[in-house]
Amino acid sequence: MPPRITPLVAGLPATVPFVGPETQERQRGTRFRARIGANENGFGPSPKAVAAMAEAAGEVWKYCDPENWDLKQALARHLGVGPDNVVVGEGIDGLLGLTVRLVVEPDLPVVTSLGAYPTFNFHVAGFGGRLVTVPFTGDREDPQALAATARAEDARLVYFSNPNNPMASWWPAGTVVGLMDAVPDDTILCIDEAYGEFAPDGTLPPIDVSRPNVLRFRTFSKAYGMAGARIAYAVGAASLIREFDKIRNHFGVNRIAQAGALAALGDPAHLAWIRERIVEARARIGRIAEANGLKPLPSATNFVTVDCGHDGAFARRLLVALAQRGVFVRMPGVAPQDRCIRIGCGPAADLDVLEAELPAALAVARREA
Amino acid sequence: MPPRITPLVAGLPATVPFVGPETQERQRGTRFRARIGANENGFGPSPKAVAAMAEAAGEVWKYCDPENWDLKQALARHLGVGPDNVVVGEGIDGLLGLTVRLVVEPDLPVVTSLGAYPTFNFHVAGFGGRLVTVPFTGDREDPQALAATARAEDARLVYFSNPNNPMASWWPAGTVVGLMDAVPDDTILCIDEAYGEFAPDGTLPPIDVSRPNVLRFRTFSKAYGMAGARIAYAVGAASLIREFDKIRNHFGVNRIAQAGALAALGDPAHLAWIRERIVEARARIGRIAEANGLKPLPSATNFVTVDCGHDGAFARRLLVALAQRGVFVRMPGVAPQDRCIRIGCGPAADLDVLEAELPAALAVARREA
Repeated sequence: MPPRITPLVAGLPATVPFVGPETQERQRGTRFRARIGANENGFGPSPKAVAAMAEAAGEVWKYCDPENWDLKQALARHLGVGPDNVVVGEGIDGLLGLTVRLVVEPDLPVVTSLGAYPTFNFHVAGFGGRLVTVPFTGDREDPQALAATARAEDARLVYFSNPNNPMASWWPAGTVVGLMDAVPDDTILCIDEAYGEFAPDGTLPPIDVSRPNVLRFRTFSKAYGMAGARIAYAVGAASLIREFDKIRNHFGVNRIAQAGALAALGDPAHLAWIRERIVEARARIGRIAEANGLKPLPSATNFVTVDCGHDGAFARRLLVALAQRGVFVRMPGVAPQDRCIRIGCGPAADLDVLEAELPAALAVARREA
Repeated sequence: MPPRITPLVAGLPATVPFVGPETQERQRGTRFRARIGANENGFGPSPKAVAAMAEAAGEVWKYCDPENWDLKQALARHLGVGPDNVVVGEGIDGLLGLTVRLVVEPDLPVVTSLGAYPTFNFHVAGFGGRLVTVPFTGDREDPQALAATARAEDARLVYFSNPNNPMASWWPAGTVVGLMDAVPDDTILCIDEAYGEFAPDGTLPPIDVSRPNVLRFRTFSKAYGMAGARIAYAVGAASLIREFDKIRNHFGVNRIAQAGALAALGDPAHLAWIRERIVEARARIGRIAEANGLKPLPSATNFVTVDCGHDGAFARRLLVALAQRGVFVRMPGVAPQDRCIRIGCGPAADLDVLEAELPAALAVARREA
């Protein structure tokens, strides 16, 4: 008899949330010339972080500090909270997986937006949760509908991202506080702020660790340019943060990543420089899109979601045509957001390639219609 | 009402498998002078791996390849298996967690040895499994008793380490094959070979991916000196390896770690050099122990387990006295193995400190008896 795995896992699909660009490169037999599809930050991490990581490489024979002490202290100062309000983990993906595991049992309801972060959904499915989705409204997640659905379903967990991926849209802080107020106290509200550092002032509510059921997720992957380092954190009430210690992989955070994150946090000038580059790149992507008859949506992130003016099939053809020309971008997964493609705020050389290839790719997408 | 977490997590203890040396250093207010307690490899990774990691630090703005393609190809060649027989993960700790999640539902029986790897037990508890333990026999895990207990309990999962941590003991390959044969086909057998590269020839059975229920775990943490990089792999039948893809954190392996592991695997000369250093250090630890009236046990690992000749209380006093003198070591958790302390095969400078401090620490331990 074959080895027995749980019925839950046996019943899971083999699909994965995202296919990496490397997989496409292997299939194509050539590298992308513009890697602007994974919301990475091609301007890179702080040179101080790179130096700290290079130095830490020689010390990597040591396990990490399982308490992530130094980084938690620095984050606590940075955020104006206590170190016991912070849990450091292997990227927001890893922390979302732990959060789902804390909360979800088979068939329990979990609320998110239709077309929001697929990796969250992957984790919910992986623990057998019943995903209840709410449509976007005007290319934004719908806080009122999320809260109403959470109440109606007696959901254990609600996911909300601000700014949003894949639409680059956002709500002002007051609306987010309204969502916090509207979600039941005994329902955990995950607010994914992976792109928070790129958002306009007034987007992120003040952190309030007196709320027992709200977790704010932030990362070194985006504004800090360290996606491959897998280091992020969640902030919340100490009583809730403490639960992570019961199940997290205590030695799981890479030691080099800890050193890099600490150095990155200590270089606000680089962060400011990154923000300026992102603003420039957003504007340029907007100009490129408009010059080709496409409509860039407002962005509070390090990518621009571009409305291609047709359906998902058209956007997908454009995506494929761009890939064939060496441009890696992605697109939202569901209608009506799938009329768009999502273009990352890469360095000028990447956007040069985009600018050069977009007209021909569009011609292909239109011809094949 | 407070946010609802699962009854399973709510009922878990707050204890963690291991306290890191950094935690003790913070409590003591000073650094250890000899960090030889966590089975780390103080001789460090291959210079080629360090160079690869330092170079990868500048590219860390990219997510990792979620397929771990290059490393899996290299491991497949190294092991003589297919890439679909290999899953790469965030250390053996991370892979054991996934394995437990694949198999364990609340109250299902899992078999291990009493006093074997606590992190495995942490994961089993974390998924609600019922841990059934088998005593060591003569400071070794007892393969026959493990198999018999697996059959009697209809266990879903069995853990076996070879060489063993914390006793440094081992069984020859034939005995391990006997265990594989004796465990029921529908029970998954985890063989933790974290220390396999340090073992005598004839310890590791040939890898046989035709066995549908056997997983072999190996790591870059020990012989390759990359504990802080969090990268390891499991090898098994493709049908079983595939299940990991349904639940693993696909982008979870650090990009720098991937680069380092690939370079480390490509430097067998460094691995050979490490093996020589470990043999030397083992011998020296043995001499230091004997000079102090203690008995070093035979070792197939990068640590030496030293029988202190008394009970666990004595060994613990010695451990504390060593720590107070700047020497970080650990000890087995349960009797009768807890008559021992576990000393890592560190570089000469670390063993100099051990040699200098052990007599006084022993005097304290004896005086306090």
